[in-house]
Order: sequence, then C-alpha cells, then structure tokens
Amino acid sequence: MIKVGIFGASGYTGFESLAILRKHPAVELVFATSESAAGQKLSDLYPVAWDIPLIPLADAPLDRVDAVFCCLPHGASMPTVIAARQAGVRVIDLSADFRLTDAQLYQKWYNVPHEAPALLSEAVYGLPEINRARVRETNLLANPGCYPTSVLLALYPLLKAKLLDPAAPIIADSKSGVSGAGRKPSLKTHFVEANENLSPYNIGQSHRHVPEMVQTIANLGGNGEKLIFSPHLVPISRGMLSTVYVSLADDLSAAAAQNLYTETYAAEPMVQVLPTGQLATMAHTQRTHLGVLSVTWLHPRQLIVCSSIDNLGKGAAGQAVQNFNVMFGVEETLGLL
Amino acid sequence: MIKVGIFGASGYTGFESLAILRKHPAVELVFATSESAAGQKLSDLYPVAWDIPLIPLADAPLDRVDAVFCCLPHGASMPTVIAARQAGVRVIDLSADFRLTDAQLYQKWYNVPHEAPALLSEAVYGLPEINRARVRETNLLANPGCYPTSVLLALYPLLKAKLLDPAAPIIADSKSGVSGAGRKPSLKTHFVEANENLSPYNIGQSHRHVPEMVQTIANLGGNGEKLIFSPHLVPISRGMLSTVYVSLADDLSAAAAQNLYTETYAAEPMVQVLPTGQLATMAHTQRTHLGVLSVTWLHPRQLIVCSSIDNLGKGAAGQAVQNFNVMFGVEETLGLL
Amino acid sequence: MIKVGIFGASGYTGFESLAILRKHPAVELVFATSESAAGQKLSDLYPVAWDIPLIPLADAPLDRVDAVFCCLPHGASMPTVIAARQAGVRVIDLSADFRLTDAQLYQKWYNVPHEAPALLSEAVYGLPEINRARVRETNLLANPGCYPTSVLLALYPLLKAKLLDPAAPIIADSKSGVSGAGRKPSLKTHFVEANENLSPYNIGQSHRHVPEMVQTIANLGGNGEKLIFSPHLVPISRGMLSTVYVSLADDLSAAAAQNLYTETYAAEPMVQVLPTGQLATMAHTQRTHLGVLSVTWLHPRQLIVCSSIDNLGKGAAGQAVQNFNVMFGVEETLGLL
Amino acid sequence: MIKVGIFGASGYTGFESLAILRKHPAVELVFATSESAAGQKLSDLYPVAWDIPLIPLADAPLDRVDAVFCCLPHGASMPTVIAARQAGVRVIDLSADFRLTDAQLYQKWYNVPHEAPALLSEAVYGLPEINRARVRETNLLANPGCYPTSVLLALYPLLKAKLLDPAAPIIADSKSGVSGAGRKPSLKTHFVEANENLSPYNIGQSHRHVPEMVQTIANLGGNGEKLIFSPHLVPISRGMLSTVYVSLADDLSAAAAQNLYTETYAAEPMVQVLPTGQLATMAHTQRTHLGVLSVTWLHPRQLIVCSSIDNLGKGAAGQAVQNFNVMFGVEETLGLL
Repeated sequence: MIKVGIFGASGYTGFESLAILRKHPAVELVFATSESAAGQKLSDLYPVAWDIPLIPLADAPLDRVDAVFCCLPHGASMPTVIAARQAGVRVIDLSADFRLTDAQLYQKWYNVPHEAPALLSEAVYGLPEINRARVRETNLLANPGCYPTSVLLALYPLLKAKLLDPAAPIIADSKSGVSGAGRKPSLKTHFVEANENLSPYNIGQSHRHVPEMVQTIANLGGNGEKLIFSPHLVPISRGMLSTVYVSLADDLSAAAAQNLYTETYAAEPMVQVLPTGQLATMAHTQRTHLGVLSVTWLHPRQLIVCSSIDNLGKGAAGQAVQNFNVMFGVEETLGLL
Repeated sequence: MIKVGIFGASGYTGFESLAILRKHPAVELVFATSESAAGQKLSDLYPVAWDIPLIPLADAPLDRVDAVFCCLPHGASMPTVIAARQAGVRVIDLSADFRLTDAQLYQKWYNVPHEAPALLSEAVYGLPEINRARVRETNLLANPGCYPTSVLLALYPLLKAKLLDPAAPIIADSKSGVSGAGRKPSLKTHFVEANENLSPYNIGQSHRHVPEMVQTIANLGGNGEKLIFSPHLVPISRGMLSTVYVSLADDLSAAAAQNLYTETYAAEPMVQVLPTGQLATMAHTQRTHLGVLSVTWLHPRQLIVCSSIDNLGKGAAGQAVQNFNVMFGVEETLGLL
Repeated sequence: MIKVGIFGASGYTGFESLAILRKHPAVELVFATSESAAGQKLSDLYPVAWDIPLIPLADAPLDRVDAVFCCLPHGASMPTVIAARQAGVRVIDLSADFRLTDAQLYQKWYNVPHEAPALLSEAVYGLPEINRARVRETNLLANPGCYPTSVLLALYPLLKAKLLDPAAPIIADSKSGVSGAGRKPSLKTHFVEANENLSPYNIGQSHRHVPEMVQTIANLGGNGEKLIFSPHLVPISRGMLSTVYVSLADDLSAAAAQNLYTETYAAEPMVQVLPTGQLATMAHTQRTHLGVLSVTWLHPRQLIVCSSIDNLGKGAAGQAVQNFNVMFGVEETLGLL
Repeated sequence: MIKVGIFGASGYTGFESLAILRKHPAVELVFATSESAAGQKLSDLYPVAWDIPLIPLADAPLDRVDAVFCCLPHGASMPTVIAARQAGVRVIDLSADFRLTDAQLYQKWYNVPHEAPALLSEAVYGLPEINRARVRETNLLANPGCYPTSVLLALYPLLKAKLLDPAAPIIADSKSGVSGAGRKPSLKTHFVEANENLSPYNIGQSHRHVPEMVQTIANLGGNGEKLIFSPHLVPISRGMLSTVYVSLADDLSAAAAQNLYTETYAAEPMVQVLPTGQLATMAHTQRTHLGVLSVTWLHPRQLIVCSSIDNLGKGAAGQAVQNFNVMFGVEETLGLL
C-alpha cells in the first residue's frame, strides 16, 4: 500500500482527491489537512457518510507518507511542497505553483515571487497523454489546470503532427461549471448571481491559465502566442467544455482528421474520441475522470474540436490520481474507472 | 408625485423595490442609499440598463421625501426608521424590526434590545388583505416577512371564519428560492452547495418568522402556538411555495371550502384563488407581485392549501409597494400589474 | 458469478441498474433489453464511455440467467415477470405490478386488471430494513417506489415501537427530482417548465404510491388511512426528501426519540441517522444508494423526520441491487458503497 | 389603437408576444390562435393571472385587424402570411419563412418548396438597427432568428466600417437557453438531459440560422462564407450570449474599436454598448428586450465581441414588437422598456 497525505482537503479539489483516494485499492490514507477546519471532521463540512479527521498543516506527519497531494491555493502551496520534497516525499501539486518553468513568468502572472525556482526544473507538467515518460520518473508533479487540460487535449494531435497554421489564431472558447471557482463564497459564485446566467470573464489572453497553455504549445513546437482563450462561467456544478477552432497549415481530409485524433488517443485509457458525427458534451465526462473529444471538419483547413472533461475529474483530482498511478507504477486507471 | 427614498438599495429587496418604484407612475425617486456601495452606481452592482447613484445613509435628504422604503437588515433598520419618523416621513420598513408588537419578544428572537418600543404600537403589520384599514392610516408600516405572507394568506380565510381546530397542529411546509437568503455570499448560498440540493433548515418552531405568524394568527382568534413551520431552501432564484395542512373544527364540504377562499379574496386585486383541481405552483407568481392559492379538500375536516408568492414580490418589495399605494391613497395595484 | 439480465434498460431506472451491475463484483451481465431502442447500443442513448447492446424483449435468453431486473413500466412488467418465473428465474421487479397484495386494489389504482394474482402472495415487498428475512427467501421481489421508501424509512421506527397516534394525520411532504418522472419527454419534464419552478401534484391521497404506503403501515400495525402524502416536483435531476410530521400516542423525550432511530438503524448498512441538530438534505444521499434520516423533536408528542434518498439509488436501482444481494446471499452492500 | 391578432399563441414566442402586446398602450388585441389548444384559454397552458381565449387559425377574423404576429413554425407560416397579405393586413412573421430572399436557398435549408416566392422580394429582414428605413415601409416583416440577431448586432459596426478581414474566419460561439428549442417536449429539452449539461449542436456551418447570417453579412459588404457558427445549449430557461471572434483588415486601436461600437449604437434605444472593461453576460438582457454588447481588444487586428440578448426578447418577440412599432410609426420602445 502506498501511504498518502492530502494538504488542503476542505476545498473542492482536495475533497474530490480524498473521495477518490479513500477507495483506491493501492492507497492508505494517512492524513488530511485543513487550515480553515483543523480539528473538525470532513463530515462537518460536507454531507458525507464516511469521514476523516482534519488536522492542521503543521501537524502533518511527512515522515509517514510516500506521497502527498497538495491541494492548497497557489502561493500557499510552495512552502508545503518544499517541505515535502525535503522530507523525501513525492509530491502531486494541484496548484499553479510549479506549472510554469520560468520563475519570472510565474511572478508576473501570480503577483508573488517564486520561492523555489530551483525546483521548477525538477517539476514535470502532468498531462500523461503528452508526458508519460517524464511523469513516471518525477518526484514533483505539477498537475495542470482544468482549462489547460481541456484545451491541450484538443490541440495535442495537431501539434504532434505539426498541422496547425502558425500564423492563425487558435481560439479556445471554454465553458466551466462553478466548482472551478472554488468553495470560498463570493458574489460570483452566489447562487442567485450564477444561476440562469452565463458570463464570460478574463477573455482573450488575460486568464492565469494562458501561460501554461502557451508554454505547453511552444514545447510541442506550436505558436502559443496565437492562443485566444475565453472562459465562461455556466450554471452547472461540475463540468467543462472547450470548443476549439483551429486553422491548418495544410489540407487535411475529414477522414484524416478523424483518424489523427482516434489514433493519437487509441491507447489512452482516460481519453476517448467520439465517432464522426457525435459531439462531445459536458455529460460525456461529468463525474468521471475521462476526457472526451469530438472532431468537426469544416473544410480542409478548418476544424472544430470539442473537448469535454469534468473540471474536478480529468481537470483536477482525477488527473492527479492518474499521474500518481503513473508515478508509482500501478495500473494507470486504478481508482478512476 | 410622491417623493420617495430607499435605504439599503443594494440588497435584493432594496434592488427590487427600486426596480418597481422607478416605473411607478405616481413616484419620484429622490435617493437610494447603500452603506457597502456608497459612491457607486447601481449598475456597478447589478447588470442593469438604467441607473441611480448610491449615497451613504448619512447623506439621505429626509427633508425632501414623503416616504422611505427601509430595506436594511434587522437591527440596522431601527435607527433609520426612528430618524425618518422624527423627520415626519412615512416609513415602509421591510425589516423585521417593527413587526412584533412586544419588544421583549423581539429581543428574544433577534438577540438585540428594541430601540424604539414606543413606535411598536404605532406600527401596522402590512398584510393589506387582512389589515387594509389600518394600513391606510399608518405612518409606520411593518412589511411582513416572505414566509409569513405565504402562510398567513393560506390561513386567513379559515381564521376569519373560525374554522380551524384549535387543538390540531397547523403544519406549514414552505419552500423558498435562494434570494430569500440575501445577497451576502455564504456557503449556504454558494452555487455548488445550493444547486441540485434541497435543504430543510430551522424547522418546527425555531425560524425567526415564527413569532410574527403566531402573533397574527392569535390576533385573528386562532391558536398560534399550534403552528409548525418548516422552511426548505430550493435551487431556484426567486419563488416561494407553502404547502399548508390544516384540521378543521367542524365539517366543511369541498364546495364550501373552495367558496370560502374564492369569496374571501374575490375583491383582492393581488390575490387569486385557483379553481378546484388546479394546484398553485411557484410559476404562478414568479416575477409577479401576486399571491396565488389553491385549496385541496381531503375530507370534511382536512384541507391542504398551497400558497405561492414570489419571495421578492408579494413576499417583500411588491407587498411593500402595495402597502405604500394604500397608505398614499393611490390605486392599490399601481406599478404592480 | 450470478448471471443477470435487465428488462427495460433504456429508462432511468434500467440505466441506473445497469450502471451498478456492470461494476458489481459478483454479477455477470448477460443481456439488456429495450423495446424502443432494440438493435441499438446503450451509448446511442446515453453519453457513456462503456457499452452494451440492447436486444428486444422477445429475444431475452431467460435460460441463461439466474436473475432478472425488470425495469419496465407498470402493466408492461407483468407478462415479463410471469415468463421469468415460469423459466425458474428469480425476479427483482422495479415496477408497481407486484407491490400490492390485493389484485382489486391494484386494478383500482392502475386501471388495468392484474394478470397474475396468484403471484401476488409469493411476492415480497423489498424494504430489507423491514423485511430482510422474507427478502432472502423470495423468488419475486417487488421493489418499493421511491416515495414509499423515503416515507416508510421515516415511519418504521415509530411503527415498530407502536408510538404513532392512530387518530392523528401522518403528513409526508415529499420533494422529488425530475428523473422520478421518467425519461419519456412531456411538458411536465420540459426544462423550461420544470426549471425555476416547484410544483405540488397529486397531493393528499391521490398519488399511486399511496396504497403501497398504506398497506405497509397497516402491516406494521399502524393506521395507514391517516396518511396524507403530498409530492412536489423540484428542479433537480436526482434526489428526494420527505419531511414527515407525526403525532405520538405517548410522551417521548427528545433523547428517546433520537435513540429510537439510532438504534433501529444501528446495524443497517444502507441507512444512517444523523446526530441531533443536523438535518437530512438531498445532498446527503445524492448519487449514493443510502437513506439518511434526521429526527427533530418539537415536544413530547410531535416529531419531524426528514428522510433523504436518491430517487434512483435507494429509491430504485440501488435498493433493487441491495435486495438482489440479500436474495443471493452475498454481502448486502456489494456494488453499492 | 392598432388592432392586432396573433397566430400561434401557445408556443414560447407566441406567448411572449402576447405578454408584451396585452400591456402595449397602442395595441388592442383582437384574437390569438392555437391549433393544438383551440377552444382552450391561455391559462389552461400557462400559469398566468390574465387570460385570452385561443381560437382555431381558420376562425381568425383577418378583416378586423391591422396587423398580425405570425408565430407559427416555419412552413406552417407561409399560407397564413399569404392569407393575411391578401386581406391587406400587415404581417410580422417570426418564423424563418420570409427571411431568405432566395427561394431555392430556402428550400435547400428547410426541405420544403417556398409557396410564395413573389412575396420574398416584398419582405424586409427586421433588424431595425440596420434596416430601419425599410422596416418602416414594409407590409411583410421577416423577424430575424435569435442567433442571427445576437451575431449580427456584434458584427454590424465592423461591417458598416468595412473593417473585417475578408479572408479570415468570423467565429461566433453562441450559447442559448432552452426556450430557444421551443415548447414541444423532446429528449433534448427533457429537464434531466439538459440540466447540468452543456451541448454543442449543428456547429460550423450546418445550423439553419447560418444562411440568414451569411445573406445579411453579404448585403452589408462582408464575406459571409467565412462565418463559422457554433450554437450550444445551456441549462438556462431564457438568454443568449454570442462570443464573436473577428480579425480585422487594418489596424484599429482599442479606443477606436470601443468608439466604433459606442457611436454606431449611440442613438439606438434597444442596444447598449458596455464601457471598456465590462463584459456582456446573459444577465444583462434577461427578461428584457435589449441587446447589450461589449468589445474586447486583443491587438490591433483582433477583437472579441460579446453579444447578449434574451432569445425570447430582442431575439424574438421583443424585436417583433420593436419592428411593429417602427412599422406603425409609434414610439419605437413602446411596450418594451
């Protein structure tokens, strides 16, 4: 059994990680922390029929675990990750703190200096469909954001095949359920404000998830600067759909486009490509840990890729556990299907 | 034109009052206050196409208005009402501060001493269907709570006719949209917590709206102590439905029960009784200022009355404007239909 | 491995049964039928990542299964149940066709004559918390309706202890998610009609679930005729909450009331009683197969019991699998936790 | 008073037209038809507190009205429009039957031959912000579709100023509330299927609203063939947001882009342009008859325009009444603000 601790168990991603890991056949849950609810039990916060005590972060017994899931807010995650690595514990970090390889870029987007730039080169960006070999070896896994996961899964086959027109905009119009905004109450997440409404926010190139997408697109040989990314909040608890509009550098037939996607993901246990004519919807992945894609061919240079994930599943906790499984050499889908 | 000011315009009841009054043909809006948003405009807070500046409460020109709508939280309302009355301005108070005639009872339920017990005898509880004559004369109108409005409209015909069994429980099972909980963000009103959920809270005899119902039932000759009142939060922005179960002291035929309701409200412009066989739903009153009732006869001693209002309409701002219309002698439905 | 077939797999209860059984460690799924979608695959109907072919009912190989789940509409279920029993297959019937022991009563409520009155005495009403010994032995399990499950779990401790006042109304105010109305499109289940609305329907003693509640209450020594049952449709996909108001024949302290419930269900793996002060909400059981109860003591003769189930979980497919587990002598919670 | 009849009053657009017109100060409602509900009253279909009898289409007294609103499905609308025109009645047609000027194109997209090609040249496509002079004179007003209204309002300033790059895709990613799918029950509009889901459908260039957008873009000198239009169904009753991504042929500063929109719509009573930094959301127009736009400048050749309308307001009935007001020379906003 792999011994695991969770930092930040009271938020949505922490709770979801806990919900997966408590049933994971290769995992023994050792601790769960919460700063806001230390001393309480999980059932004091969520209407659950199972339970676990919540301890303060400072009391976490790092010497008794093999791995930790770090579900703290960005900024707050850094010192905990540093401490865990110093204790020799493998880390799956669900915050943004180790996703960008450039400490200056991190500071620019997150408004705080990076406290451990040396660890950035050690960290691996955990999209196993793209990076599996490196995920397997790393001790510090930076789990991608939910929006980047949905957009990068949509772009990866075209990037890998060098098919994107480097001069054309890549337009990702994304829609997210409200749990993506976290559990802290705010006017934006107030039921009456979010219900029966749909709101774009930080559209274009201003959302904090843009730089990790740009970085990954560039790493795969694409022109990340052409990315236009527009998130929208929708009155749904969980779910994410990105509708991605791409222009190609060369002609591609409809059949070839479909084949490219089908073959790229043929061996992937957590990603599915729908047959021609079906479109990915939020319902395809809701309360699962899968990504589901559909390809719509408009003409030989123009595709629309719809990419569906659950923002807390493949977009956060599910992907974190998938990465954990790869890191520890157990069946990649363990606890997830 | 009647000159009107609004205290507390940034909350849901204040905003809704403003939305009615700005189109009210007999009203000139003079000011709107907000402590949290003083110096801003309404369009900074709500996605509206019209606008009004929000001033601090302390700057409100009481000498330039004939009436004020006081939409402040309970406790905060008292000093403003006192000041307005001292300035000779007629007050429609939407808070709970002047609904209970007994200052001790107020303190018991609201945990603060009453600051103006002398004004309590002057205040009139503003259910015009029950109290119209007194509403017309008063200078201090205590606008009822949303739950009490829905429950009392359901009970009034039976109370008036002295038909309720004084020994039997009166069971009001009420369901409310989330706007009833106010605009201040909290975990209870977080979209992800409220959505796809339905929660009872403060059930039995522990909700703060119980004493004003008990008081009104008693004033009408009933046994208020038999009231059992169970509110539930439902994932709806606006709306309220109370399903009220009553036992009768004497036999009543189905036709007589229906007639009792139909006749009691026959002349009421803001209350409708559905024909036999139809049931009141939230949709009957949503985004209106009406109350809609249905009567279901089970046997000669047992009825179920369904009572629908919009919690911000007949349950708050709509009823406040109805009372205002009565107080100022204009057409009772002005601005409301 | 127990070999299982499902009749009527394309509706919500059939689909949910399938979703549980395909992961059930003691089950081998042999067939799934659908009259409306015969020849299609499940993934043609639902956005699922797994699949099963749908065959016509007439092609179902009854000789190759040990048990069938019958998820057909009432009326349509009878001939299939008869055929399965003649083939020596054990039946879990999720329809209403074998819940009432009186064939005349069935005809009165369902407007069709019963085709197999002889089987009615063989059928066992499958609330394992009440009836486990008989469930274990039966070959024909009548799975209870969702509303009856929620109401009977709330009443059972009081019925068992003979505490209900036989002269007082038992008032069950129930709220159900829309999936309870089935998958067939209708105006009632149209998104725009159900969304932002809450509707009572068939309130009092007119809903088809009344007679199975009356029968069970009577079997437990209570006065079923005093039941008043009011269902409401709420804009939620899955979930059910019944708020049950009961009067007692003798004084009961708050502690004794809580103890009664806690002890009655102490050994029950699928029912939980919340500690005093917490109230059962839909979220407590949503997407689970549990029942969760809370007891609110008002005075020595008056309780409110809130009873939460998922209408497709403990209210249908989850309870069906629980009964199946009991019938086949495997761990009662297998596939359910 | 202008005498008005409504054909097809029982669907959502017919009902909404009725709801506006019954309060319209210059209108006398003469008749409302419904084929499916002829002989019933409106209150038999909708939970309304006001009422009107529904007559069969064949009984409609065309000789007693000055104008008709035709809210029938496409195809069904043609004969009624023809009859009304023959009777000398001015027509506002909310169906698609007279929007396309090319009868062959109509047949291609709607699969029925056009029955009155001669009337097509008489019909005026009713976006008053673009076409007001022609709207004023016409006797046959083709009211635009909801999606086209939202997209064309977003594009019009750029088209008018000849700023769009004719070689670049125009990408309109649109999100619509479920009422846009009509009131006829279907699996797509079933609450449980639509709730908590978001689905793209007919994306690219396959939705029936594409040709009227292409036609209008071309009429304004743009390259309509470059339009990519992707509708999505969202779990909201009413509302529409189009996020429109455009590439410009020449450099435009952020200030110039904002000015272009502000000035284009400065005199328009039913369209508002938000100040820089605010984004249009569905809430800006919900239950209004307005269009609200925001302009986001990414770089001198790339803009994102968010365009919000209520699909039943400015997207259907509200725009129809706006056109009616223009046609009859009354205040354009009468009945709408």
